[in-house]
Amino acid sequence: MLTPDFTAPDYTARELAERFALGLRGDGEVRVRGVGTLARADSGQLAFLANPKYRGQLADSGASVVVMREADAEGYAGTALIARDPYAAFARLAALFEPRPLREPGIHPSAAIDPSAQVADDAHLGAFVSIGARSRIESGAVLGPGCIVGEDCVVGAGSELVARVTLVTRVRLGRRVLIHPGAVLGADGFGLALARDPDSEPHWIKVPQLGGVSVGDDCEIGANTTIDRGAIEDTVLEDDVRLDNQIQIGHNVKIGAHTAMAGCSAVAGSARIGRYCMVGGAAGILGHLEICDRVTITAMSLVTSSIREPGEYSSGTPLMDNLSWRKNAARFKQLDALARRVAAADKEPK
Amino acid sequence: MLTPDFTAPDYTARELAERFALGLRGDGEVRVRGVGTLARADSGQLAFLANPKYRGQLADSGASVVVMREADAEGYAGTALIARDPYAAFARLAALFEPRPLREPGIHPSAAIDPSAQVADDAHLGAFVSIGARSRIESGAVLGPGCIVGEDCVVGAGSELVARVTLVTRVRLGRRVLIHPGAVLGADGFGLALARDPDSEPHWIKVPQLGGVSVGDDCEIGANTTIDRGAIEDTVLEDDVRLDNQIQIGHNVKIGAHTAMAGCSAVAGSARIGRYCMVGGAAGILGHLEICDRVTITAMSLVTSSIREPGEYSSGTPLMDNLSWRKNAARFKQLDALARRVAAADKEPK
Amino acid sequence: MLTPDFTAPDYTARELAERFALGLRGDGEVRVRGVGTLARADSGQLAFLANPKYRGQLADSGASVVVMREADAEGYAGTALIARDPYAAFARLAALFEPRPLREPGIHPSAAIDPSAQVADDAHLGAFVSIGARSRIESGAVLGPGCIVGEDCVVGAGSELVARVTLVTRVRLGRRVLIHPGAVLGADGFGLALARDPDSEPHWIKVPQLGGVSVGDDCEIGANTTIDRGAIEDTVLEDDVRLDNQIQIGHNVKIGAHTAMAGCSAVAGSARIGRYCMVGGAAGILGHLEICDRVTITAMSLVTSSIREPGEYSSGTPLMDNLSWRKNAARFKQLDALARRVAAADKEPK
Repeated sequence: MLTPDFTAPDYTARELAERFALGLRGDGEVRVRGVGTLARADSGQLAFLANPKYRGQLADSGASVVVMREADAEGYAGTALIARDPYAAFARLAALFEPRPLREPGIHPSAAIDPSAQVADDAHLGAFVSIGARSRIESGAVLGPGCIVGEDCVVGAGSELVARVTLVTRVRLGRRVLIHPGAVLGADGFGLALARDPDSEPHWIKVPQLGGVSVGDDCEIGANTTIDRGAIEDTVLEDDVRLDNQIQIGHNVKIGAHTAMAGCSAVAGSARIGRYCMVGGAAGILGHLEICDRVTITAMSLVTSSIREPGEYSSGTPLMDNLSWRKNAARFKQLDALARRVAAADKEPK
Repeated sequence: MLTPDFTAPDYTARELAERFALGLRGDGEVRVRGVGTLARADSGQLAFLANPKYRGQLADSGASVVVMREADAEGYAGTALIARDPYAAFARLAALFEPRPLREPGIHPSAAIDPSAQVADDAHLGAFVSIGARSRIESGAVLGPGCIVGEDCVVGAGSELVARVTLVTRVRLGRRVLIHPGAVLGADGFGLALARDPDSEPHWIKVPQLGGVSVGDDCEIGANTTIDRGAIEDTVLEDDVRLDNQIQIGHNVKIGAHTAMAGCSAVAGSARIGRYCMVGGAAGILGHLEICDRVTITAMSLVTSSIREPGEYSSGTPLMDNLSWRKNAARFKQLDALARRVAAADKEPK
Repeated sequence: MLTPDFTAPDYTARELAERFALGLRGDGEVRVRGVGTLARADSGQLAFLANPKYRGQLADSGASVVVMREADAEGYAGTALIARDPYAAFARLAALFEPRPLREPGIHPSAAIDPSAQVADDAHLGAFVSIGARSRIESGAVLGPGCIVGEDCVVGAGSELVARVTLVTRVRLGRRVLIHPGAVLGADGFGLALARDPDSEPHWIKVPQLGGVSVGDDCEIGANTTIDRGAIEDTVLEDDVRLDNQIQIGHNVKIGAHTAMAGCSAVAGSARIGRYCMVGGAAGILGHLEICDRVTITAMSLVTSSIREPGEYSSGTPLMDNLSWRKNAARFKQLDALARRVAAADKEPK
């Protein structure tokens, strides 16, 4: 017994071309009912060709329609949708074929909502959702099952917390923010002072974290990503910041608009990252640094000082078979001595 | 007031030997009621000796029974169970002494189950479990408290989601899959296209993630690990894949059977990992690479190109005291220049 | 409609000086109603000056009161609270101004509590909390919404699980432990043995994890951090251990009192870390190692052998622009050959 939650999509190539202002080559009456990869698409499916590396797959593709650049369409016998940026065009086309779960307005009877919270009439609150004091859920927002919103938070209009997202306290989300399961925003920043009281051995005391988290419009935050709230002022994500899974953002970090960070990357407290930056997977950025706009950090690199010039930056060593690596890595410990020896030899009379 | 949930185990050495087809030396009537480490086991406990490094602990061990290789048993005065692989034998023996919580068939009254979902009569659904449309929970499956299963998922027979596991959508688990708390399977892959529309500054648009996640039989997935669903096709784990905690698996990754990955490792989108691979803690594998069968990657190494030969691979530099490290690391920035100087000197007339 | 959950704080500088035994310079009647950064504080706010780097901000600060060292107060015209350690003093002062959510004693009606569990009368259990068999929640403990406590656990007096924390089984927390959302304590350690049975291809069998997790008093555990339970004995955190977010602690690890670890760091099974250690962000420590007291590991370093001397340790290479990095990194693969060539040249007759 199935309860279909969306009408099976079915479009002609011509309808798609018109809807997205794309060029059309070939048979405009061909029907599209889903998407596939260029290599494995079947009849009735739409595929795309963006990377020239895969051009060889075009001739054998079973796709009924392929989105591609004009240059790639020359000599192509099938139906093509022509786009300057086929990948971006595909992103928009594919959204038509995405089965999205129904999230009808209303509040699941199990939800626990503080009397002082405000929930828009057309918001969706799923099972086991908890909303704390003075928080506000705006129009069209969706909170899937198990989401927890603490005190003094705002979930902006059209935002979606997929499931089991936690906003701890003083977290303000803009509009159309999408947050995946397990993400935690607004937990205490890691602020500690070592107390050296005369009557006890040195021990940590907690620095209260009085700030919040401010997230701009159109941000996306991945599964199990954590963004701590600020110590005094806020931790800030500007508009259209895109964070993958398992990222850690320390307190008082500021991330500029349109910056994207890949999985497992981490930013320590009070670092400031510019706009249109790209941070690779598992890369790290130390605290209190500044990174200017349009900087790319490659995977697993560690940024230990501020970056003032746009460009691509890296650290680390290449992968080798373990035996070679051991020999070379051992020499790394002698690198300064080696350099000194070479410098001294250069000065020797020959 | 205690409610014991299992009968206190009590076996003779002879019973254990027969049950697991192990050799027996010494007194077969010795009783075993629990397990301990070789160094600290007490009377009534079973210990094991697998690593020859710990052989010296054998003489002083208080264990009543020790599992070991035949060669190690020579001259041992106590009771020994003889196994070709003592660690594997211990794994099986110890399972007898594990206090497993009761998970009786039935559905906790708080569970929220979509009318179109199917739940086997002998499945266990704990408190605050949510099951979405068209999902199926098969025979003997256990979903501990707080688990969330979205739309169009399958939890195969005998699988266990310990607690607070999230399957977002289109996640299909095989049989006897074990998933630890906080894991998230089937969240959106990180697919973005930069839109350069004439009427706005460049901004990200989301590439819909239309695929699912397919997990084979006998897989284990650690706490807070994330496995994204595929963009078009599925993300795939074959049978008996073992993932530790806090691992990130990007969309469309394929992991071969019997591969094990240690904590905090990460695999970027569309990478393919072979069978019987071992990936060390915090190691990273870039996207779209292929790694053949029986490859070992050591901890915190970064794989930046495909690996075609079985073997062990590493990157990184050795740990040093910080002062030495600073000197050597500074020289790393001059390494190319140094190599050129040495090459030039080699060519100089002597 | 707001339901204020604490009285707006308001103190004179003199009251603060007396309460915390601090020196006072300037007008003791100045009123403090909140805190701010030195650079941006307004009238009515308290700021602090600890790092001499920011001394230049003092003259222009709008703060009504500034906590600082005696030496920094000379020539300062405003009101100062004098402390030997201004940051520690600020930590204590700021706690007066922290809006703490009300967590009144009592059990939310949705909570699911095993009949054999014990919950102190003055504990707070929020919505959707689940408590398993034989677990004990002690006096004044707070379990925020969505927390799951499995079987045979103890939450010590005055401890707080902020929200959506999971204690799987056999987890014993001391007093005043603070755990942030998404943390998972007591999941199965990653114990596997490769079974080479004659009738099947080699496959993993699970080693039962029979131990627990023991956490001392005054520990703090960050969001989405995972601490596995021990295989036979316990995983142990001594008193006042401070763990940031997204940290992974393997089974049977022992961490000494007052050690602090930054986000995304990881410790593999059975490693022992001393007291007063500091582990930087994303640093890794391999299994079965020992690290003595007062060791600092810098960010993203990998510890591959035991450390016997206090001090600071590092690994890795410095960040460079990608083009320079590529050249130098390629030479790393030839480093052993280079060193051999230089050594050989040294021996050549000149």
